[in-house]
Amino acid sequence: MTIKQIIEQIEQKQSLLCVGIDPVMERLPSAVVNTDKPLFNFGKQIVDATHKYVIAFKLNTAFFEAYGYRGWQQLEELAAYIKEQYPQIFLIADAKRGDVLHASQMYAKAFFEQMPFDAVTVNPYLGKDVVLPFLKYEGKWVIILGLSSNPSAWDLQLIQEIGTRDYVFEKVFRYGSWWGDENKVMFVAGALMAYKLQQIRHIVPRHFLLVPGVSAPGASLEDVLTFGLNDNYGMIITISRSIIYSSQKDDFAVKAAEKAHQYQQAIELNLKKIQQRKI
Amino acid sequence: MTIKQIIEQIEQKQSLLCVGIDPVMERLPSAVVNTDKPLFNFGKQIVDATHKYVIAFKLNTAFFEAYGYRGWQQLEELAAYIKEQYPQIFLIADAKRGDVLHASQMYAKAFFEQMPFDAVTVNPYLGKDVVLPFLKYEGKWVIILGLSSNPSAWDLQLIQEIGTRDYVFEKVFRYGSWWGDENKVMFVAGALMAYKLQQIRHIVPRHFLLVPGVSAPGASLEDVLTFGLNDNYGMIITISRSIIYSSQKDDFAVKAAEKAHQYQQAIELNLKKIQQRKI
Repeated sequence: MTIKQIIEQIEQKQSLLCVGIDPVMERLPSAVVNTDKPLFNFGKQIVDATHKYVIAFKLNTAFFEAYGYRGWQQLEELAAYIKEQYPQIFLIADAKRGDVLHASQMYAKAFFEQMPFDAVTVNPYLGKDVVLPFLKYEGKWVIILGLSSNPSAWDLQLIQEIGTRDYVFEKVFRYGSWWGDENKVMFVAGALMAYKLQQIRHIVPRHFLLVPGVSAPGASLEDVLTFGLNDNYGMIITISRSIIYSSQKDDFAVKAAEKAHQYQQAIELNLKKIQQRKI
Repeated sequence: MTIKQIIEQIEQKQSLLCVGIDPVMERLPSAVVNTDKPLFNFGKQIVDATHKYVIAFKLNTAFFEAYGYRGWQQLEELAAYIKEQYPQIFLIADAKRGDVLHASQMYAKAFFEQMPFDAVTVNPYLGKDVVLPFLKYEGKWVIILGLSSNPSAWDLQLIQEIGTRDYVFEKVFRYGSWWGDENKVMFVAGALMAYKLQQIRHIVPRHFLLVPGVSAPGASLEDVLTFGLNDNYGMIITISRSIIYSSQKDDFAVKAAEKAHQYQQAIELNLKKIQQRKI
């Protein structure tokens, strides 16, 4: 998928929303649990109900691996289903893989050849070697973990370098932008502190950011968009549990769609507000 | 598995060797490729041929995921086979996972509940949250990526902190040793520069190190053991391709066993040499 196609989706749907599908068996409605393929069926219904409001779907591999090879098989089937039904929607494997060159090649094979994902999230701790194999695939993307939004993100990411005074996460954005341009590389940029997105935009003005953690304290949608948008929009806002678990009863897909629609409308409103401010 | 059981294996076999099983279809002998379960059959034959010389086996998930859910199924079968046949051998999932708390829980479930691994390698970039869920399992281990031995390891791992002058990889060893003691936590410590193991031993005198990259220039087995051993031995030397691909013909298992035996003998010799030096 090209950056142009992503921007077309954004403009057509007036949305930056990505729905993250993280199925935990204990939280699925019983009508879904009591089927042959609960993970697939849950995901399929969420996708069919929300696709109008989203520009991306994100499947986190952890939630499929936890159910063994049958879980992995459902991950494959769900990815194939999404790509077949909604080829214009950007499909992300949230796998956070990161290994040395010859192993990283095999991960690229898994997500880009065995499965039809458009993008994979990767962990930069082992450096450039992790990213290179993914960049060889035409029309595919790598999304590098830059700044995460979890409580212990600071342990390593906020170590400050001697001399340059750069933080480790800033190094990741800088190096990542050297490894691949805005047509191949995106970054995870957690919204825990919206003002940090401003720092990040200085380093990577042109790359897309995948932003989790919106609506946490200190990360209102308006702040996040104000600090993070660029001339290509440049942001994908990813929301998982607060959409997919809006209801745990049989109306889960309807409720998820309502919630996704609310997020899309809030994004549309803020996009307009910010555009008007610029005029 | 307890640290005592690992030490018993070391003393009984006079070995620190771990064989890494990274099956790449193109490199497997045709007799294996032309079976229903090539990855499993290759792994099984390697395991049966080399188990006398090793204290650990390591399966890298990348090499199974690359072949889809059938690959994952063979990973499960191979792990189950090894644990059933050789329960005293330490079984490592080289998965390099690393995600936020609620996703990390699912990875722990995958490797410790769905599969019988004793240990999983994890990536510390997201901090303590990654490690916590794995520590909750009695008798299981987490192996934190500290210093890797790939060419781009330096990109992030050798960033030096303002004030403390610590390198990022040193922080990982220090924090990791706070997160879990030597009965729960090990570290990957690449042998690219054997003298670095000395630095690492100052920070984590008691923890086990999983050491890839031995026999690279600047990382002779003798140097690595001299700098890395502690009172509990404290080292697992992991070798993959130079053992499992000793031959790509039908004699691959016999040749792998010969190579593993050579490594075991070299380890035994060096262990004796170093012990004598101490007397």
